[in-house]
Amino acid sequence: MSHYSAPLQEMEFLLNHVVDARGFNNIAAFDEYDAELVSAVLEEAAKFSAKVLWPLNQSGDIEGCQFHQGLVTTPKGWVDAYRQFCENGWLSLALPVAHGGQGLPHYIAAPVHEMWLSANMSFVMFQTLTQGAVSILCRINDPSLNRRYLQKLVSGQWATCMSLTESTAGSDLGSISTRATPTSEGQYLIKGQKIFISYAEHDLAENIIHLVLARTPDAVEGAKGLSLFIVPKYQVAENGQLGPLNDLRCISIEHKLGLHGSPTCSVSYGDADGCLGELVGEEQCGLETMFILMNEARLSTGQQGVAIGEMAYQRALEYSLERIQGRDALTGQRNVAIASHPDVKRMLMGMRAQVLTLRALSYQIAAQLDMAAIDSPERDAQLRFVALMTPVFKAFATQSGNDMANTSVQIFGGMGVIEETGVAQLLRDVRVTTIYEGSSGIQANDLVFRKVVSDQGLALRELIAQIEQDFARYSALQCASTETTALRRMIDTLGESCDYIVAKSPANREALLCGAVSFLEQLGISCCSWMMMRCLIVSEQLKEQGIDTEYYKNIRALSHFYFAHFTPKALSSFNIFMNAKKGILDYNVN
Amino acid sequence: MSHYSAPLQEMEFLLNHVVDARGFNNIAAFDEYDAELVSAVLEEAAKFSAKVLWPLNQSGDIEGCQFHQGLVTTPKGWVDAYRQFCENGWLSLALPVAHGGQGLPHYIAAPVHEMWLSANMSFVMFQTLTQGAVSILCRINDPSLNRRYLQKLVSGQWATCMSLTESTAGSDLGSISTRATPTSEGQYLIKGQKIFISYAEHDLAENIIHLVLARTPDAVEGAKGLSLFIVPKYQVAENGQLGPLNDLRCISIEHKLGLHGSPTCSVSYGDADGCLGELVGEEQCGLETMFILMNEARLSTGQQGVAIGEMAYQRALEYSLERIQGRDALTGQRNVAIASHPDVKRMLMGMRAQVLTLRALSYQIAAQLDMAAIDSPERDAQLRFVALMTPVFKAFATQSGNDMANTSVQIFGGMGVIEETGVAQLLRDVRVTTIYEGSSGIQANDLVFRKVVSDQGLALRELIAQIEQDFARYSALQCASTETTALRRMIDTLGESCDYIVAKSPANREALLCGAVSFLEQLGISCCSWMMMRCLIVSEQLKEQGIDTEYYKNIRALSHFYFAHFTPKALSSFNIFMNAKKGILDYNVN
Repeated sequence: MSHYSAPLQEMEFLLNHVVDARGFNNIAAFDEYDAELVSAVLEEAAKFSAKVLWPLNQSGDIEGCQFHQGLVTTPKGWVDAYRQFCENGWLSLALPVAHGGQGLPHYIAAPVHEMWLSANMSFVMFQTLTQGAVSILCRINDPSLNRRYLQKLVSGQWATCMSLTESTAGSDLGSISTRATPTSEGQYLIKGQKIFISYAEHDLAENIIHLVLARTPDAVEGAKGLSLFIVPKYQVAENGQLGPLNDLRCISIEHKLGLHGSPTCSVSYGDADGCLGELVGEEQCGLETMFILMNEARLSTGQQGVAIGEMAYQRALEYSLERIQGRDALTGQRNVAIASHPDVKRMLMGMRAQVLTLRALSYQIAAQLDMAAIDSPERDAQLRFVALMTPVFKAFATQSGNDMANTSVQIFGGMGVIEETGVAQLLRDVRVTTIYEGSSGIQANDLVFRKVVSDQGLALRELIAQIEQDFARYSALQCASTETTALRRMIDTLGESCDYIVAKSPANREALLCGAVSFLEQLGISCCSWMMMRCLIVSEQLKEQGIDTEYYKNIRALSHFYFAHFTPKALSSFNIFMNAKKGILDYNVN
Repeated sequence: MSHYSAPLQEMEFLLNHVVDARGFNNIAAFDEYDAELVSAVLEEAAKFSAKVLWPLNQSGDIEGCQFHQGLVTTPKGWVDAYRQFCENGWLSLALPVAHGGQGLPHYIAAPVHEMWLSANMSFVMFQTLTQGAVSILCRINDPSLNRRYLQKLVSGQWATCMSLTESTAGSDLGSISTRATPTSEGQYLIKGQKIFISYAEHDLAENIIHLVLARTPDAVEGAKGLSLFIVPKYQVAENGQLGPLNDLRCISIEHKLGLHGSPTCSVSYGDADGCLGELVGEEQCGLETMFILMNEARLSTGQQGVAIGEMAYQRALEYSLERIQGRDALTGQRNVAIASHPDVKRMLMGMRAQVLTLRALSYQIAAQLDMAAIDSPERDAQLRFVALMTPVFKAFATQSGNDMANTSVQIFGGMGVIEETGVAQLLRDVRVTTIYEGSSGIQANDLVFRKVVSDQGLALRELIAQIEQDFARYSALQCASTETTALRRMIDTLGESCDYIVAKSPANREALLCGAVSFLEQLGISCCSWMMMRCLIVSEQLKEQGIDTEYYKNIRALSHFYFAHFTPKALSSFNIFMNAKKGILDYNVN
């Protein structure tokens, strides 16, 4: 059994030096969160993830969830782990102080959440759901709902799930057909079937609050006619006490490629016409409200890519340092660890560089999300950045997570496909991340049309300007050399893509639809290259200050490696984007 | 339950028009194989694969192989399918007439083998083993071995396996420690343990002939000291009769990510010091002899990538034409099949184009392998082409197979990770193909050092000249337009890579070791682009002759699509290759 060791040094390097929140404790609103406090939180989280969550990861995969007569039993040990997770305050870490949470900024919660996901992604998926539900309730701010639900969600006494998908309504939520009919008591009768609902039923919490998208009788067609309802497993009286079981039941759980420990449920609401729900917010504002949760879930899903990537890297590194095979191609020395073979080293560095840059991007987004919570002249720009980055990070980090899991299996060789080693589980677990919470294609369309076309490229140009600033600092470094040309071209082509998108739309919408995924890749690699420039700049600055360690030397080597091995792919994606429509119109799929 | 429908039209298009064997029946040595005969064989194979093999594919995955007291039971229906496979002459299709086979050229056997692999890859893996063992015996031409083994292998009465890997000897076969001690009767006593042996034990055949690499007492160290032995499960007397059980036993089978129907065995030889083996060829020539089988196995593994890619494409096409979701982004029409969404169409076309070009390359290699069997002035060049292409096709087709399986899952969305749909099985089954029979890293090193450096770029330059010829024909087409620049650059950079490799070695061996995989990708994409040019040229020629159908129109659209979406990646791989060493030397993995 191998270990999970949280990459604390790297997390703190990024938090304290690389992302915009450096000097975080100098921002008045966050002055209580200095580097030492952050360090202490991260260390405790590292212990909990290594000692409590990680040991249940493979056993959870093997055992899976059990379904029997409408009830789901989670794998052995999960009930206790959930109890500890809540009691130790990890669930409430970033939840509002007003409702019993600790209110830590996203910036600190992000690395902590990443640790949970590395250690046991199947298990901790409930956390994002609770966090999202709390965000929704806080935003809606309905006194009765707040009073009855918020504290119990924050404490973990009750759990929640996001009940959207139906068999004919997946990417297109506008097709949802679940009905909500008002009762004379101000509630709604919910009737319909939902599928693919994570954690809709389990044995971790006393009650499960389903957030259900449904259609009221007079609603307009499509997504705009949807309303959001709270539909609890056990009814909740006005005084907050648990009532009888609601008329909803889990009818099956899925047999999936991965995430065996996370129950994916089909749920039937109102089989006996008695499923009671309460409206959240106003009628026909359901999708908009749900997107509060969805945007958080998308960022969390991106983090899953980073987290699995980290595990994939740790496992591959460990194995490649232990596994003796072959001779050193340069010195001729026999029986060396495979980590010293240049191609294996290349794969290891590729994983490390991917995970480093994506992690930096993740914290950068979290920091700007926090700063956007402060009333300041930059607030709108911060929000634009987060909105622009959400689809990019979601799709690109999950794609990279899949790449890294694949690379890890490759380094393990034949042992990689033997289930006992656990590395195949990473591949199985991470696969769905480019699909759920909006597939990569959906993210790419969101990026191009809702995040670039809609503001005529404003947010993207602001981002390019940020990258330009760091490029100027990077170019001034002595070590900047041949790679400068590639980075310059990378930034220029981002601008060209921006012009192309803004100019094309709506005249040639099809070209953008065909190329959206390529543009997202271009932007994803560019953002990671940007983070890599920052890492290099910081490392060089520290060196000038006489602070130089093996860690910083490696960061510098990794930067040059990334610019050589990954940055060129941005140009390739750009070229594809520019010609994406070719042949597609003339082709007949039938 | 979905279907497998062999892509006969595409196979025949490639065989008759695209690969070098067009006009095959005009070659004297093969004049009996005209288009009609080929067509008839392919049709029968298509029926057998659809009716007999495909229905056992998912059930085999679910049931898996069972291990009990040294014996392996294959999934339900496999014993009967094996019997039919042998009785109907499919096993002996390309095996030598002199030993009971039908002696069909590789060129015809390749599409047939591809069908088996699409329909049930786990099942048909024994075929490559038998084919390889027969090739070895024919090459060694030992009268006693021939008489006793060949006919029974060709008929399928006996099966075989390739027993190479040990727990400390995987990629580095030189570390093999299994011993072979001569007896006074001219046999050898084999002692050692092997792992990862496909089909080392099963219930399909009466006897199983292990081809074992082992070390004789006075052998030199490393790979050069290995000898090859025939070690049958049941001993085989001089008169060919079955004797007692040999002292070897299967001690376990692996619990794998995929290929559940194919038993992956650990085998112990000589626990009671009575495991008898017979030398094949001469002592210390084992690895060289085994490479006869290995090269065939590598081409077959590449075909696995094509075959799984074909299935991935078929399943995704079927699903995306049936699945109704969302509105047409251009016309606004509601509830359209997802195949009409531009991004889904892009993914479908990408899979189709990958499978088409790799299939063409597969048949091109097979055809040149056949032509190399004829005594002609071009024979050496044909052999050089096959040798150059073996690592490229093996690694690039399997990597593409993984890509395609991933894309298929992506198109299925949430349903893609639900095991019942069967598409996740493709992903699980194909994963090992970039690993076994020599990982992609091993193939890349083989390509750079043994196939390019060793002949100072001769074979590669001959290939580039072939591509140039087709480029000239392509450039003359009216439809050649903006993409000409990209293709021109693609060919030029191939030449630059060739010069770089030849010039660098051995002065900067490390740069080549770091970049070998990128160069292999560059060459892989270039070869597929070459095949795509040929497809386009033929399709345009047929159009000029008044032969134009939806199929040919699609081929043309697909070509332009490929040049826009895949060809640019060759340039990116080239750029990475040129700078591959950056940062790697300075980085410390520990």
